[in-house]
Amino acid sequence: MMDVDLNSWMLFRNAEQSYGDTPIVTQTSADSQHRYTYAEFANRVRRLITVLDGLDLSEHARVATMAWNSFEHLECYFAIPCSGRVLHTVNARLSFDDLVFIINDAQDEALFVPADLAETAERLRAKCPSLRHLVVFGKSPRDDMLSYESLINDAEPFLGERAIPERAPFGICYTSGTTGRPKGVLATHRSTYLHALTVCAGNGPALSASECVLPIVPMFHVYAWGLPFGAIASGSKIVFPTPSFDPKVVIELINQEGVTKAAGVPTIWIAVLDELHRSGARLGGLKELLCGGSQPPYAMIKSYREEYGVGLLQAWGMTETSPIATTTRLPNALLDKPIDVQVDYIAKAGVPVTGVFTSLLGDDHQPVPNDGKSMGNIYVRGPWVLDSYMGGHGAESFEVDGWFRTGDVGVMYPSGVIELVDRTKDLIKSGGEWISSVALEGALMGHPKVLEAAVIAVPDPKWQERPLATVVPKPGETIELEEIHDYLLGLGFPKWQLPDRVEVIDEVPRTSVGKFDKKVLRARFSE
Amino acid sequence: MMDVDLNSWMLFRNAEQSYGDTPIVTQTSADSQHRYTYAEFANRVRRLITVLDGLDLSEHARVATMAWNSFEHLECYFAIPCSGRVLHTVNARLSFDDLVFIINDAQDEALFVPADLAETAERLRAKCPSLRHLVVFGKSPRDDMLSYESLINDAEPFLGERAIPERAPFGICYTSGTTGRPKGVLATHRSTYLHALTVCAGNGPALSASECVLPIVPMFHVYAWGLPFGAIASGSKIVFPTPSFDPKVVIELINQEGVTKAAGVPTIWIAVLDELHRSGARLGGLKELLCGGSQPPYAMIKSYREEYGVGLLQAWGMTETSPIATTTRLPNALLDKPIDVQVDYIAKAGVPVTGVFTSLLGDDHQPVPNDGKSMGNIYVRGPWVLDSYMGGHGAESFEVDGWFRTGDVGVMYPSGVIELVDRTKDLIKSGGEWISSVALEGALMGHPKVLEAAVIAVPDPKWQERPLATVVPKPGETIELEEIHDYLLGLGFPKWQLPDRVEVIDEVPRTSVGKFDKKVLRARFSE
Repeated sequence: MMDVDLNSWMLFRNAEQSYGDTPIVTQTSADSQHRYTYAEFANRVRRLITVLDGLDLSEHARVATMAWNSFEHLECYFAIPCSGRVLHTVNARLSFDDLVFIINDAQDEALFVPADLAETAERLRAKCPSLRHLVVFGKSPRDDMLSYESLINDAEPFLGERAIPERAPFGICYTSGTTGRPKGVLATHRSTYLHALTVCAGNGPALSASECVLPIVPMFHVYAWGLPFGAIASGSKIVFPTPSFDPKVVIELINQEGVTKAAGVPTIWIAVLDELHRSGARLGGLKELLCGGSQPPYAMIKSYREEYGVGLLQAWGMTETSPIATTTRLPNALLDKPIDVQVDYIAKAGVPVTGVFTSLLGDDHQPVPNDGKSMGNIYVRGPWVLDSYMGGHGAESFEVDGWFRTGDVGVMYPSGVIELVDRTKDLIKSGGEWISSVALEGALMGHPKVLEAAVIAVPDPKWQERPLATVVPKPGETIELEEIHDYLLGLGFPKWQLPDRVEVIDEVPRTSVGKFDKKVLRARFSE
Repeated sequence: MMDVDLNSWMLFRNAEQSYGDTPIVTQTSADSQHRYTYAEFANRVRRLITVLDGLDLSEHARVATMAWNSFEHLECYFAIPCSGRVLHTVNARLSFDDLVFIINDAQDEALFVPADLAETAERLRAKCPSLRHLVVFGKSPRDDMLSYESLINDAEPFLGERAIPERAPFGICYTSGTTGRPKGVLATHRSTYLHALTVCAGNGPALSASECVLPIVPMFHVYAWGLPFGAIASGSKIVFPTPSFDPKVVIELINQEGVTKAAGVPTIWIAVLDELHRSGARLGGLKELLCGGSQPPYAMIKSYREEYGVGLLQAWGMTETSPIATTTRLPNALLDKPIDVQVDYIAKAGVPVTGVFTSLLGDDHQPVPNDGKSMGNIYVRGPWVLDSYMGGHGAESFEVDGWFRTGDVGVMYPSGVIELVDRTKDLIKSGGEWISSVALEGALMGHPKVLEAAVIAVPDPKWQERPLATVVPKPGETIELEEIHDYLLGLGFPKWQLPDRVEVIDEVPRTSVGKFDKKVLRARFSE
């Protein structure tokens, strides 16, 4: 068979030939849009390659983007790797200190930003000596930076194709660094290509030329789960939402643009559901929510299915797994089962996608029984799973036969389905037994008065740790500890797992990627 | 990223862990079935690996199957490559002479057959000195052959996993040899894995754990289009039909087993549609027909959509392309267009799948314009496209930059959609102009009185060649040349393209893989 490298050109080239008329839509603000076609996208990518070639960067330079979801960001996604350089997607929501750290760590030579981040970019240049060029999307607002549009307009399209070996570096993402400094994860062209096929696979998001995808997950967060690569490779219509999340705009976009698949973390879908209930709006031709980042509440999955006819595909993974490792595509045998059985399947973490293998090991590194009860550390192996962090940090995560220890703890059922119990560090250790904060949160978010809930461990002189529930009630509601106890007991939680305290809060603090920030809650409530 | 080989174990391993309860059904005759689960399948594959290890074969031996679609054949599909040996799927419908030729050419060391082919296998052993073992499915009916069931029952399951580099040979298929001797096509583990992902891709058959697939296409014909590999990799329920095609049985299976995707050549779907019209049966939860091998008639695609709500995905390819090269997944922009526009898209050959590139070149090797009119030879490139035939035969197919010249002639539209005009050898050359037999056949099969039609070139003293239409009328119908002329003129065919003769025949002769055998027709009607 032909020796053809699996690289970014393989993802890009048919976009030009086969899907030229397909639209790419960027909602730039609540009332303005940018629209163009794959043909124009491809032409601009080829011009951007010429621009990159002309910037006097080193041959395999690391080129950073710090940007919201937009057509310009998408152009960078393809032009930087197709030019043979390395795409570093910088998380715009990190602290300035972390931004300086990762740009210096990656030794980025250029940085692409939208206008509203130009000032941050300017401040970064002062702290990051490797940064030789700042490029700002749109027409240049200032003399000291390059204008993206001017550069593209002045460049001829690069013709032909650049030969790139499949194991060459493609891109860099840093972990969100909830423990210690962010660590760099280097993806190859091969891993990115294979992961993109997972984005197109039936057990994955199943993108195709028939679909219209709305990635609400930011493109600075593990490449928006690889959706842009899968979309361009398969000719899906793409719709980018506004930088700041607004459930109303999301619902409008879904209806107006014919979105069929929309991707975001559970908190996004909780807020959208809340807005749907408030406004009475519908979801047009939306078929499926793609949901990852943390476990979606059971009640929410059921509401979308029963009230709006919209399915949910949960995916589990992390930056180190590119990110998709497991998904919850319903097995054929469950299709004619009651909705509760189906939602129960979807609310777990599912089974590994083709190419990925999982293994649950005890602290002794021996496999735990797949009985749905025994907890194990989840290890992962596959061609888009990291084998080492940049700079050799975190080597302890790769100590067992080279498999990656994810830091998540789970159980496996006899059917092979994995259920996440918790992040290792979020488990609550009470009197020698483990309590899952994830299980309590999922249950609490099903309570009719609760909008969101986060459960943390607080130190306890007798039991070592005890659970504390922080709860955001729905507008106009109040909730008492006793109600919560009754509710959880009714769901079958044993008495010793019930939270000792409930704290009502206005909103759950979030990390830069939108996950619950339990560090902040612990600091606030652990006295 | 981890250096993980893309091989048969990657397709097989999750079948055990994640899909143990999923059924695999073999309809052994009109009124008997074999059923078991993925767990039993996987256990037997592991036993069969032990059996193969014990047969004293050479390390990378070629092991042949000559069998219908069945669970045993599926076991061989995985055990032979997972053991490190090479799977040679022999087309049971070839002439005895061709069977001898290809087994000797491949130097197969063992041959697995069902009971009804045991006698042929015995005759082959006499002519093929490399064949050291004959294994017959079921309990051995004869002393001189090994019993598949006895071997499996006596073997322990092979534990663990065998390391196989991704570029190692996986399997051999021979072309059907419509011109000259069959030629061997050697697939690698890597090409088979990547093609299997195409079988799971949204633009491809989109197999997943939710689907139930019925491969009517034989497993001896380009690995049943790779469907068994994609199905096992993604946990689809599998239903194998009876060896001899019976439209009644197919319709029953679709309804009883909840088949969602069924795969076969157009003549299969013409016969099923005919039976549906006769019997008034419905198609249960069937969502999509997967159709390849030759161009499906426009009228048939429309009937399935309008009368049964069943879509059709056309795929184009050949043994040399593993086989899927292009598909006709409807672009998002066409989803709200009238059905005629959609069927018009699906009736063409579509666009290349991710990983495959196509190029239409004139006889001068220069690209032809993508104007929907200029005809070019279709060239293909991709990681599951052949770079040379076994033994170096047919080197002229790889002369242009290493791309594979498919032997098909087509046009490309500005949108990038490819339409097949014909096999090079089936084009009709009339007065210096080309006439497409495929276009005429597709149109004729839409005539209300016509069941099937095949168009061939016959020599003509004035025009060099002229088209002759052979037609199978629907039961009880007759049809005249004039009716056909009026019908084709009404569809917009120019007068000079109309067939000069119509011959009514009882059935269209077929090749061993079910395609129209125009060689036979030419011999019969070319005087």
